[in-house]
Amino acid sequence: MIWSKKDLLGLEELTKEEVELILSTASSFKEVSSREIKKVPALRGRTVVNLFYEPSTRTRVSFEVAAKRLSADVINIATETSSVKKGETLIDTGKNIEALKADIIVMRHNSSGAAAMLARHLNISVVNAGDGWHEHPTQALLDIFTLKEKLGEVAGLNVSIVGDIAHSRVARSNIWGLTKLGARVTVCAPKLLIPVDIEAMGVKVTDNIDEALVRADAVNVLRMQFERDGEMAFPKQLEYFKAFGITAERLSKAKKDILVMHPGPINRGIEISSEVADGLNSVILEQVTNGIAVRMAVLFLVDQARDGKRENTD
Amino acid sequence: MIWSKKDLLGLEELTKEEVELILSTASSFKEVSSREIKKVPALRGRTVVNLFYEPSTRTRVSFEVAAKRLSADVINIATETSSVKKGETLIDTGKNIEALKADIIVMRHNSSGAAAMLARHLNISVVNAGDGWHEHPTQALLDIFTLKEKLGEVAGLNVSIVGDIAHSRVARSNIWGLTKLGARVTVCAPKLLIPVDIEAMGVKVTDNIDEALVRADAVNVLRMQFERDGEMAFPKQLEYFKAFGITAERLSKAKKDILVMHPGPINRGIEISSEVADGLNSVILEQVTNGIAVRMAVLFLVDQARDGKRENTD
Amino acid sequence: MIWSKKDLLGLEELTKEEVELILSTASSFKEVSSREIKKVPALRGRTVVNLFYEPSTRTRVSFEVAAKRLSADVINIATETSSVKKGETLIDTGKNIEALKADIIVMRHNSSGAAAMLARHLNISVVNAGDGWHEHPTQALLDIFTLKEKLGEVAGLNVSIVGDIAHSRVARSNIWGLTKLGARVTVCAPKLLIPVDIEAMGVKVTDNIDEALVRADAVNVLRMQFERDGEMAFPKQLEYFKAFGITAERLSKAKKDILVMHPGPINRGIEISSEVADGLNSVILEQVTNGIAVRMAVLFLVDQARDGKRENTD
Repeated sequence: MIWSKKDLLGLEELTKEEVELILSTASSFKEVSSREIKKVPALRGRTVVNLFYEPSTRTRVSFEVAAKRLSADVINIATETSSVKKGETLIDTGKNIEALKADIIVMRHNSSGAAAMLARHLNISVVNAGDGWHEHPTQALLDIFTLKEKLGEVAGLNVSIVGDIAHSRVARSNIWGLTKLGARVTVCAPKLLIPVDIEAMGVKVTDNIDEALVRADAVNVLRMQFERDGEMAFPKQLEYFKAFGITAERLSKAKKDILVMHPGPINRGIEISSEVADGLNSVILEQVTNGIAVRMAVLFLVDQARDGKRENTD
Repeated sequence: MIWSKKDLLGLEELTKEEVELILSTASSFKEVSSREIKKVPALRGRTVVNLFYEPSTRTRVSFEVAAKRLSADVINIATETSSVKKGETLIDTGKNIEALKADIIVMRHNSSGAAAMLARHLNISVVNAGDGWHEHPTQALLDIFTLKEKLGEVAGLNVSIVGDIAHSRVARSNIWGLTKLGARVTVCAPKLLIPVDIEAMGVKVTDNIDEALVRADAVNVLRMQFERDGEMAFPKQLEYFKAFGITAERLSKAKKDILVMHPGPINRGIEISSEVADGLNSVILEQVTNGIAVRMAVLFLVDQARDGKRENTD
Repeated sequence: MIWSKKDLLGLEELTKEEVELILSTASSFKEVSSREIKKVPALRGRTVVNLFYEPSTRTRVSFEVAAKRLSADVINIATETSSVKKGETLIDTGKNIEALKADIIVMRHNSSGAAAMLARHLNISVVNAGDGWHEHPTQALLDIFTLKEKLGEVAGLNVSIVGDIAHSRVARSNIWGLTKLGARVTVCAPKLLIPVDIEAMGVKVTDNIDEALVRADAVNVLRMQFERDGEMAFPKQLEYFKAFGITAERLSKAKKDILVMHPGPINRGIEISSEVADGLNSVILEQVTNGIAVRMAVLFLVDQARDGKRENTD
């Protein structure tokens, strides 16, 4: 199978085979980061632009490291200092980056669909690094990569996603990817944080955390952001932790080898206890390591696809 | 002809031959950005410092890409995080960068003459990336490069520059460069935005946009910034667009092949209509592409000149 | 002697031999920055992360240049855009960076002991780029490197440190380093800016600037920060300059060849006069140049030490 998409916009649009190709490509790149000289020349002389309209150190740094290990030149643009300030449209910004003869734009944007819109207007590659509440495909891919690496096969696994499902692009991308590969997905959250139409995505829904954990092979714990609740943040955090926090006690009723995952940064004592975050079931830091491999694979594949097209039109 | 200046401060101080040398050097670098591996080792092991006292994503990124395609190491310093905050003088900052054994400082500064002052105090190269209302030489060079590439010869061309001439370093640098190469320049703006002494620079002046367009081979449309006008911004924008905006209707009375240029970022519906910006006469994105080639040429030439001097003093 | 520490946290914990090893390693790296191609492959394929919780252009840039001259990939993280905002703990941030398979974290932090705490929790290297009022070891090392380069031998030298000793990590690191190498250190400041227990560090104390200068082979002038004093800043600055400012007149009573040092950025007319800062005794800019060599040495040594341990555990 050959990868043919110039962009990675979301997991919804990918076939099972395409997801598997990214995962197997990531497997072969993973070894690079354990070498003494962590570098391959795959993207030498290419220009990768990190275009971040929302602050995100983790994702930006992960893409930057991935691109540099592929020997690409990396340019960081953050909205703070961007011409966005001056009112340029997203498409104009994209066209300008294309005109610099950049090869790949990695974009984080607060609007759902922003990456897809940009991709339609450009010949260069666009990789979605999170668009509004829509998708965060590389996060889901690294989650699934980690599951596969640890548990061998994704098909047939029971995976529970716990947290603010309604506002989580991580949850959506995971659901698309996991169900495509044949996993059974359960989402668990307070009722207000579950979107009304979520069952149409092929998932089970519960607001009972013990039910979500009992048969799970893995639990993916989402970050809870109570910051905007002002002085109510603290009581809400306590309440949430009591009702949904992943604790050792709760895990004691789950499968012994359940994997505990989290996209980070973790809130200790809010959605997860420190004991669990640092415990034997946690693969949270391995997810971070796998993120480099998955992003190297994605950058490599979209670049190759564009090259293929370039040859075809010659 | 051999380039002998360690700095590029403005087009005023250059001879016609020097301008032409930059343009021909840029021609030979342009091809690099269309290679699969967009990199030449010309500045390998050199350190280029982008020192930006004003935010400017476009210019900073263009220089960063240019320097990296020449294989230089690039360090970005923005005032936000700079020791400038702590009250260090510009010259001290420059001397410190020189002491790091950097090779080239690319500086954007809000004071006219800042780059020239820095250059006088340093042995390393200074490239002016915009100083107050004074000059923005690489922008004008890429404008002229584009004119030449599209129209063959600059001498004898009629070029109109439309917009806030009084506060535009882009206009000033273009006037110096274009008149040196034998183009006839017309500036067009509301009377308040035309400096009193502008005719001494050898240009024609008009506040009638149709007159500015009628014989023009190219029109360079400047960005209008009404942001500081607060609630008056919107009515002023409408008024400006009505009186000076470059629209398809206005262009219909100009030469059929008139080139439409803009230093970007464009304000659609303020100084230019979307139809024109995206139309067949527009070379706005080609200007961006040419900016890389021109900046590669400038970085290469000033570095060579310094090398030459270094040898002489050995 | 072989360097065996994976971290550089402070000079207090180093032996005299370890300090000397860094200095001699720096000597051999110094020549790299005067080559035409200022690059060696020593850290090729390594990832160095600059993690700065306080703004510091000078130190960040110096480490970035040093790492790039060693051919490392460099990632900059500033608190402004960091996940620190989202409440992640320092250790979690560090563990995440480690999980990216980064090799060295260069950290500036406003809390004393932050670098040491991070280093204890990580297997990768941590280099302290300033932690609260505690230590700034690479600054002291470059100061001592400069002393040694200029004066041949540190043992037996009289070095005076003038300024806000109580709040200066630069002073503390210098005292540890200088006394280990056998220099005699005098600290000089207004009484309120001298910590009560400072004599326990083996230094002489005075609040008389002439006494501090009379026998000194070198004077290290600390930056005075009166900014927080609001409208009192200006009178306080005048008063300080009158009582402690290093002026040509004061220097005329010191040894003819006294070295004048300053960690920068300098405040002309506050702790030092322009005449002295730019005068023949000043080695302030040479310190900046030496900073690159010292930081190259430190990055190289800590990386080697980790490699050694890696081999041992294989």
